This record gives sequence, C-alpha cells and structure tokens, in this order.
Amino acid sequence: MADTITPREEDYSQWYIDLVRSAKLADYSDVRGCMVIRPNGYAIWEKMQAALDGMFKATGHVNAYFPLFIPESYIQKEADHIEGFAPECAVVTHGGGEELAEKLYVRPTSETVIWASYKKWIQSYRDLPLLINQWANVVRWEMRTRLFLRTSEFLWQEGHTAHATPEEAQDEVLRMINVYKTFAEEYMAMPVLIGRKTDSEKFAGADETWCIEAMMQDKKALQAGTSHNLGQNFAKAFDCQFQSKNGTLEYVWATSWGVSTRLIGALIMAHSDDRGLVLPPKLASRQVVIVPILRGDKQAVAEKAHALADELNSNGIHAFVDDSEQNSPGWKFAEYELQGIPVRLEIGPRDISSNICIAARRDTGEKQQIALDDTFAASISSLLDAIQQSMFKSALEFREANTREVSSYDEFKKCIDKGFLIAHWDGREETEAKIKEETKATIRLIPEDPDFRKKYSMDEPGICICSGNPSKGKVVFAKAY
Amino acid sequence: MADTITPREEDYSQWYIDLVRSAKLADYSDVRGCMVIRPNGYAIWEKMQAALDGMFKATGHVNAYFPLFIPESYIQKEADHIEGFAPECAVVTHGGGEELAEKLYVRPTSETVIWASYKKWIQSYRDLPLLINQWANVVRWEMRTRLFLRTSEFLWQEGHTAHATPEEAQDEVLRMINVYKTFAEEYMAMPVLIGRKTDSEKFAGADETWCIEAMMQDKKALQAGTSHNLGQNFAKAFDCQFQSKNGTLEYVWATSWGVSTRLIGALIMAHSDDRGLVLPPKLASRQVVIVPILRGDKQAVAEKAHALADELNSNGIHAFVDDSEQNSPGWKFAEYELQGIPVRLEIGPRDISSNICIAARRDTGEKQQIALDDTFAASISSLLDAIQQSMFKSALEFREANTREVSSYDEFKKCIDKGFLIAHWDGREETEAKIKEETKATIRLIPEDPDFRKKYSMDEPGICICSGNPSKGKVVFAKAY
Repeated sequence: MADTITPREEDYSQWYIDLVRSAKLADYSDVRGCMVIRPNGYAIWEKMQAALDGMFKATGHVNAYFPLFIPESYIQKEADHIEGFAPECAVVTHGGGEELAEKLYVRPTSETVIWASYKKWIQSYRDLPLLINQWANVVRWEMRTRLFLRTSEFLWQEGHTAHATPEEAQDEVLRMINVYKTFAEEYMAMPVLIGRKTDSEKFAGADETWCIEAMMQDKKALQAGTSHNLGQNFAKAFDCQFQSKNGTLEYVWATSWGVSTRLIGALIMAHSDDRGLVLPPKLASRQVVIVPILRGDKQAVAEKAHALADELNSNGIHAFVDDSEQNSPGWKFAEYELQGIPVRLEIGPRDISSNICIAARRDTGEKQQIALDDTFAASISSLLDAIQQSMFKSALEFREANTREVSSYDEFKKCIDKGFLIAHWDGREETEAKIKEETKATIRLIPEDPDFRKKYSMDEPGICICSGNPSKGKVVFAKAY
Repeated sequence: MADTITPREEDYSQWYIDLVRSAKLADYSDVRGCMVIRPNGYAIWEKMQAALDGMFKATGHVNAYFPLFIPESYIQKEADHIEGFAPECAVVTHGGGEELAEKLYVRPTSETVIWASYKKWIQSYRDLPLLINQWANVVRWEMRTRLFLRTSEFLWQEGHTAHATPEEAQDEVLRMINVYKTFAEEYMAMPVLIGRKTDSEKFAGADETWCIEAMMQDKKALQAGTSHNLGQNFAKAFDCQFQSKNGTLEYVWATSWGVSTRLIGALIMAHSDDRGLVLPPKLASRQVVIVPILRGDKQAVAEKAHALADELNSNGIHAFVDDSEQNSPGWKFAEYELQGIPVRLEIGPRDISSNICIAARRDTGEKQQIALDDTFAASISSLLDAIQQSMFKSALEFREANTREVSSYDEFKKCIDKGFLIAHWDGREETEAKIKEETKATIRLIPEDPDFRKKYSMDEPGICICSGNPSKGKVVFAKAY
C-alpha cells in the first residue's frame, strides 16, 4: 500500500523519490549509486524494449553481444573518448585470484570493444553496412545519483553501425534519432524536440550528436536519447579500413545511438501525479484492473469480473481482477492508482443488473459508464487509445505553454525556471560556459525540426543575449536533469 | 561463405570451433576468455529467451534487475558460497578514479545481492512467495574456455524465489527443473535426464541441486540447467525472517535456478553436422530460405519466390528469399546449410509451370516436392513440425543407444568414452573422487524420472563398481563438458 507521497508543489524532487519507492519501481542497493529495478519498474522496461527492438529490426538492425570488459589499451585509442569516459569508469584489477597484467574497464559504452571486432569483420564494401544493436548494462561512476535518471549502473541499448560513405552514416544518425522521437511520442506520450548538441555537449568521440529533449513537469529538460555521427574517428583509432567499390582502401564511417532506463525516469516525471504513477496504455503491462464490489451474490459478481477480464484479454487488452476480500475497494482504488493502471473498472450487483460497469481513467480521474454488451471490448480499446492521445496532447500543451523566446539576459535569468528559453547565442563555447555557470542553464539543442525553427524564426540573425556579439541563430536553453 | 569445417570424426573439438566460427555464431575477444556473440548466435539466444520467458511468466514469475556489483562483505556472508565462488571472481578495486573502500565483485551469480534486497522486502507471510527472475550477464574467471560452453562472461537467467515453507520451496525447485526439461525437449529437440546432483557436484550454498543432463554427439554429457533448493541458508546469512500465519518469526526458504548461453553450445553439439549448424525449427529465427533458380524469365521466378515467402510469413512461418545474382544456387545451398536454416525451397521456371517447388530438409538432406496450391503453407508448417519431432527422436535414440549398465570397474573404464554409464556407487565422496581422478568421469546425476529408474532397476541394492562396498542404488556416470 502507498506510503505518503510528497505533493509535487511542495517538493518535486522528494515527490519523485517517494513515488519511485511507493510504487515499488526501484530501490537503491548497498552498492553506492547502483539501483535495484523492482518488478513494477522492470515491467515498464520490458514494454519499452519490445517496442524499440521491433523498431530497430524494422529498420534492418540485428542484435549481438560484446564483452562487458574493455582492456585499458582500447579505451586509450581514441583521445576524446578516453578523456570523456576514463575518469568515470569502474576498473577491474584482479581476476581468478590474481592481479591482471592489463586493467579492465567495465564498459561505460562499447564503441571501443565493438570496433575491435568490426576491424576483424569488415574487409570490403560488401561487408557494409553493418547494423548492430546491443542490449546491455553499462557503468559510469556517478557522484550524485537519482533512481533511473542517474545511476552508476544502468541498462540501455547501444546501436553501432558501420558504413561505406559519410552520407549513409548521416542518414543512419537521422533515421535512429527519428525512431527515438517516434517511440517517445507514440509510446511514452512524451513530446520531444529533435536537434543537434553544441560541441561542448556532444559525445566524447563524436563529430556530431543528435538528441531528443523532453520537458518534465517541473519545466526542466531531460535528454531522452542520442544518436552520434562518429565520422571515421573510431575506424582510425582501430585501423578499420575497407576496400571500396573502386578498389581503394578507406576508413569506415560510424554511428552509435542509445537510450536507457533513464527513460523510465522521464516517463514518471512527464506524466505522474501526486497519487502515483500515470502510465500511457502502450507501456502498461497491465492496462485494466477490474475491481468487483463484493456485495449481495459475491460469487456472481466475482465471476462476472473474471468473465470481463477474459473478454478483454482475448481482445489483446491486458486486464486482471482483484477480487481479494482482504482489502476494501477504496484501498484497491488507491493502490492501482499508485501503480498507474490506465483504466479501472468497477462492477457491483446493481451494475450487473443494469448491464453496465463504471470505468475510471487514471490520467484524468474521469468516470464513465460502459455498456456490458458486444461493444464492451471495443469501448475499452477506444478508451485506452483516447488516454494515450490525451496524455500526449496534455504534455505537448504543457511544453508549448512553457517555451518562450527571450531577448535579453535579464529576461533570460528571470525566466530560466519557467521552461525552455529560445534565445540568440554567439556560437562560442566560452559564452555557453558563462551562461551555464551564472544560471545553471545549458543549451539543450539546436533544433532541427523545420516547423519549430520557423515558428520561432530561429534562422534570423541577431544579438547574443549574453555576450552581445552577433548571433547567426537561436538555440534552446533550459535547466536539465 | 563457409571456411572448411573439420569433420566430427576427425576431431570433434576442432569441428565445434570451426562451426562456431564459420557460421558466425561467436568470436573470442581480446579480453581473455570473453566472447562476442555475433548476430547469428544472438538470434538463437533471443528465441531461447522468448520461449523461456513465456514459460517463467506462465508459472507466475516476474522479471527484475539487481546490481552487477556485489560488495565483498556480501559474498562472505554464506560460507560455502564464498568458498565456491570467490576464487573465480573478477574484482573491481577502483571507481571514478579512486580506490574503493570496499572491493566489489562482479556477480558470478546473484544470491547474495538479491537476498540483501529480499530482507528489505519480506516482513510477513503475505509478502511470500516472491517469484523473481533476472536476465543478466555474469562473470566467472575461467582458465580454459570454449565458446558458449565455458567463457569468463556469459549471459543467463537466474530465478530467485522466497517461500514460507520448505515444501513450497521444493515444489518450486521441481517445477522449474521441469520447465527446463520441457524447454530442452520441446524447443531444443534435445532429450535430457532429470535428477539430483551428488553433494560434491551441487551448487555452493545449496542443500540440494537438481539438474538436466543431455548427451552430445561425442557421447559426453552436458549439464544444461540447474535448480537449487537453498534451504534457509541465504535467509540466515542475510537475516531474512518473516512473520508466519501463526505469528512466529521464521527464516525464509529459498530456491534459485538458471540456464545460460551455454545452451547454444549444447544445441550445436547435439544436432549439427559436418556441413554446419542444424537448428530445430522452433529456435530458428529464419525457418525457410527460398532460392529461386534464375533462368528464363528471371523476374517472374523471383516474383514467385517473394510471393511464396509472403504467404509463409503471413502464416507465421519465418521465410526469406535470396535472389541475389552475385552468388550461384550451389553457393547459396551451402551457405544456408552452414547457417542451419531448417528448410530450403528451390523454385525454377519449370517448377512454376508444374506448380511445384522442391523442399530440402536441413536435418536429413531429404528432398520432396511441395504443391504450390492452397495447401502450400500448411505443407511447410507440417514439414517444420516433422523436422522438430524427428530431430528429438534421433537425439533420443542416440542417447538410448549410448546408455548402458556396467557391473565392473574394468567394464566401466572400457566403456567410459561410449556414453552414459549406469553403475552402482557406494554413496561416498572419496569413491566419487577416485573414479573422477582415474577415469575423468563424474556422477552426472541421480536420476529421478520413475520410468528411467525402473528401466535400469536403479533402486536395487548392489556392490559399488569401484570400492566393492555395498551400494543402495545406481547412478549415471559420464565424461562431461
């Protein structure tokens, strides 16, 4: 049963922690910064994995698995990469009771160990493209952690592709960031902006990083997925060349892209409320809970509830019944609201005689009567669709209401806790760093959606809000998780 | 294309290595003893995971995820456990650039880290049973490795359950070893014996270990799955007590059970041949390859091939076409035999005019005509079923032909390379150790299948083949992977 959840208005961070604990989504472990993903949380990840994996396969990718351990010499091969990742690695120094001749890094990401294999597998243009994804755990030692959002170990997928031309690699980068956008919007009901990172925010070892950015309910940004154009950096580091169609030897072009269990944190922060988790129906492993009101002929009511669940399940809707007499209907209502079950059906003796039941939506709390005739399963299916759409719409309206243009640094500072700020920037790293230091806001992305760019006239030149230097265009700033 | 595969008769070990490499199932990495599971190998694991995961959920289990790292103090809590596992662990001593206050072991198995959580989650009998499974990577430092069969890192699932009574725990142990048996026989087409391990072969920390044992084509045994009754050992080590129905405080009863990517090695060794992989249809991600014979009206032939593939796919059979003109039909036949595609369909202009195609079975090489009428998809479906059944039957006949009773130690030594030996044993560890030292054979299991026990009169008392001491019953010996 629910412990008390701190209201969002009172303390958003505490609300998040309380919710994750109360809904039994995750726990900290005794290993500093490592989490236990509990069954309720892992069920969300399984739904995410299934949807994403299907989308990866539909775009021609296959799965494989590469070693957890990366020899120190591999990590050192790409200069930016080691600078970015080595300080946050966990290091294995002993194995089988002996000190190792070479230290092993627990993978923080797998570019190096994968490109060591690609070098063996790629000889000719006929071996390209190579389109491989891996589902795995990775470790990045974190000082300040937050369940799902930032933990020392997390689960993710990492795609690693190899191409014969830079154009094909760039197509792949864009294809996959758009797969992520589709997943975020259609499954998570979470609108995202799509665009490029500035040089200071890009992946260590990438030429260019694309990302999707979402707005949480506290108006902070959350980076939900990235897709990197790695150029020939890793091919050069691992001396991976191929014979091109016209017989020349060339370095292979690379991409990598990933999303992680961080998305579970994003999902919670985007939609949930003070009563608990709110799950979009497409990511709910249990979509409908049926709570029979056990009065009068209890057995008949319970049987009807199970018959309705069977009917829904045979129509592809995941429904279950809680007919335990140990807990009251009120207790059950609160418990399944906490767990985020999208629809609750209540059915009692009088409903049965009227041939109806009551459906309560988790997202809005609205109740409606549903006829128990041959339209029943279709009605519930429509209701689930409506919830999915309406959750997306609410989140989009929220983001749009909290995205604004600012034209001075004063205005910027005043508004920085109010959401996404669109402002002119002179393109210099030192300006970006100064803004970050003074306001804690970062450039989330240089948006690339044409409609968004047009809406905010992002291509118009202007004056940098911070430095006063000329600016070639606007970018999106926000505080971020 | 296939490199040359050493024939099994010539060198079985080399055949295995050649096959794994040629069929692109796995590669060694530069990290000693760690493997890369290539897409062709990982596709088998994905099919295995899907089938097993469905069976786990159907028996009431849910998935979760626990940390990769185990504090040294956890491992030390269970005496047998540390003795068994500590020497083969990889140890993290540094994280985030600093030496850690407490060493972290990369999990060799997760009993300890999971029971540290269970202690927090279990207070009352109402919290029981707890039926959780985890899909994860584990590391056990190995000196002598073999792809899939024995590697320092491997993938597996580990079930960890908590119960209020020893009877419930024992029921779970048996339920899960029987799930494994069903999976091995119905999906892998690999017959297994089911039974208990002797004390010297059981899991470090278990009261009793149940296992399934299969016979490979070289007549060696392979342990394919285990299910452990952990008694109250881990509950006591982690002080995990619950309030029982009658109000007393009691230690929780535990089980754990697992299978790993080792099963891929077992699958290869059980069925494959000198031409390459032989996959049972239920574990083949690609079940049917259609090779059009591109003569005459090439386009019409290719179109017909694609139409047939579409028809099969829409009937739930995974079919694909190879209509590339770069490679000859003969090359394709060899390539897809190497890859283990269960059925090959050949179709040329004359076949189309006769409204037939030729189906070749991968397992037996038999060819037959298939009518291209409205019975087509059903014919292929029946053929796949027949292959699945016949692979199991062949493997069962092979095992039965190579299982024999021996009544003297001389006979035992003469026959130990000829398969499973059923022999009297006095029940003493020192006898077991002596036999192992002198013959390299181990007691694979004390079979518990009543039919098997009856067939070999295993309950009849007799004389130990090695020591001459009285024996209460027979056991199964073999050399093993």
